[in-house]
Amino acid sequence: MDSKRLKDIRGLTDRRIDALLTLLSENSTIVVSGTKIAKEIGVSKDTVWRWVQKLRALGVGVNGHPSKGYHIARIPDILAPKLISRRLLNTPYWKRIYHFFKVESTNDIAMQLGEEGEAHGAIVLAEEQTKGRGRAGRAWTSEKSSGIYCSVLLRPQISPSQASLLTLVAGLAARDAVAEELHATPDIRWPNDLLVGGKKFCGILTEMHAEPDRVNYAVVGIGINVNQSRLPAEIAGVATSLRLESGHNHSRLEILIRLLRHLDRYYNQFLTDGPQPIVRRFAEVSSYFQGKRVRITTATESFVGTTAGLELSGVLRVARDDGRVEPVISGDVVEA
Amino acid sequence: MDSKRLKDIRGLTDRRIDALLTLLSENSTIVVSGTKIAKEIGVSKDTVWRWVQKLRALGVGVNGHPSKGYHIARIPDILAPKLISRRLLNTPYWKRIYHFFKVESTNDIAMQLGEEGEAHGAIVLAEEQTKGRGRAGRAWTSEKSSGIYCSVLLRPQISPSQASLLTLVAGLAARDAVAEELHATPDIRWPNDLLVGGKKFCGILTEMHAEPDRVNYAVVGIGINVNQSRLPAEIAGVATSLRLESGHNHSRLEILIRLLRHLDRYYNQFLTDGPQPIVRRFAEVSSYFQGKRVRITTATESFVGTTAGLELSGVLRVARDDGRVEPVISGDVVEA
Repeated sequence: MDSKRLKDIRGLTDRRIDALLTLLSENSTIVVSGTKIAKEIGVSKDTVWRWVQKLRALGVGVNGHPSKGYHIARIPDILAPKLISRRLLNTPYWKRIYHFFKVESTNDIAMQLGEEGEAHGAIVLAEEQTKGRGRAGRAWTSEKSSGIYCSVLLRPQISPSQASLLTLVAGLAARDAVAEELHATPDIRWPNDLLVGGKKFCGILTEMHAEPDRVNYAVVGIGINVNQSRLPAEIAGVATSLRLESGHNHSRLEILIRLLRHLDRYYNQFLTDGPQPIVRRFAEVSSYFQGKRVRITTATESFVGTTAGLELSGVLRVARDDGRVEPVISGDVVEA
Repeated sequence: MDSKRLKDIRGLTDRRIDALLTLLSENSTIVVSGTKIAKEIGVSKDTVWRWVQKLRALGVGVNGHPSKGYHIARIPDILAPKLISRRLLNTPYWKRIYHFFKVESTNDIAMQLGEEGEAHGAIVLAEEQTKGRGRAGRAWTSEKSSGIYCSVLLRPQISPSQASLLTLVAGLAARDAVAEELHATPDIRWPNDLLVGGKKFCGILTEMHAEPDRVNYAVVGIGINVNQSRLPAEIAGVATSLRLESGHNHSRLEILIRLLRHLDRYYNQFLTDGPQPIVRRFAEVSSYFQGKRVRITTATESFVGTTAGLELSGVLRVARDDGRVEPVISGDVVEA
């Protein structure tokens, strides 16, 4: 657990900038002198000044300068661990939060943490991903401080054939978190997309390290487009953000906290009661559960059929037009 | 593919000692001067001398000394890449061979190689493992230069639920390789043990990095007890080595080459014709396939039943004494 590489990964997090941010946030009503900050964090006044500039570059409104002291204009919408963990004390997990300003992929880091023996429930957050990924190695655009890029390390005692259920658990949690925030009801497109008005704003990527009969650890990565005011041209026709839907900015911090609370709830339900309640809840909130005309594209074919519920492994069943009903083991599903 | 970490892993292999070994083996009928060796490999004469001593410590009989030149007493039973690759030219895979004198676990290195993008068919070999592993994190004793410790990186286009078949493919390959070497017929105890006279001499550990619907890469680790003349007391009652069975030493190199050729054959058969021929072959060579009284121990229970064939996913079916037949998704199987 305290291996060399785990320490290396911890060393890469911006913990001291997090400390500065937390200190300013906790004293948001007063001006704090640079000398006091430097002393509390244990760095020089010059370093404090450099970090303040870095925070400003990240969009955090910090007033003041070295001679007068600093004052935060408002509690920033940065996913700093201390701002999150105090809100999740009633959940037993989520105590190890790794926050990065910029990483290649939060899932990659969470998988490394799994390899190094980090505990169940560890969370990796990034303000920006440079190589964010979706299913099957596809890219996931991860603009700086506009979205939620969150990966959770899980150690469920399940077989690899049940891993689809982890995607559903995370999808349901993200769906509930967003439904509370937005005056629109998100849909879930099996297995891993959340849509509003037919456009995607959230994707889930589940990865695992497993033996044939057991998952050693799994990572559920959740990407949510929150405050993007525009999206890259190549995806604008099929993708959206919460801001684009509502017309105003949303607090990433609040959505993340809701997401993690719902995740905790659904995950525990899955462990306690098995897949049935997860499948039942999916049936309630997803238009893709049953009777939806869809086009399925697999590695070898593409066909149109009608959805016919989920198997207890979380796999979608599709009725072909010739009447055969079969599970979609691997493939893409879109509305036909 | 040529990422920094991949180079780092390559750098850890003892490639120059391999080069010395190969040079001596290829000139086994003559005495080669230290000067000539130093020039060919590109190191000092002193380094050549140090390496000769290291080879001797590994049990390689090298005659001579710095002033007279060196001569290898016989082709050594070391799994040096050059000695292997020339014997496998007719197999399209197995061109990237990573050979180590001592590692924690060949499976761990092969999984890292997978993560770094190394190609299908890469092989990791070690003369000694300090943290060799079996299923579910159990230890695998890996004494220096006595056994075969080999992990193969595979990139099959299969779902995680088919990964048991990779274990069977590797088990069949190891079984055939050993059957040709030993005048005894090895048995396969589902899923991953090879036995002779009821004692285990070979284990397989399949691990994978996967999404719920696709394996990104898998590693099949094969450990074979070859020339151990005694085994640790705690496993001596249930384990054996080829030497303990036959009364004489066996060439690890020859067994490994046979193993890899059979692996290539079974693996291609699996990719081309699917699971049926693998299951059929398992039925031919394993006494555990059908009608065997076994005790099954899972995370939640232990019961006695009778084996009833394999599912096409490679999972064992067991008939309980009340007549119910069910798959053993995860559990240990021993003769009852």
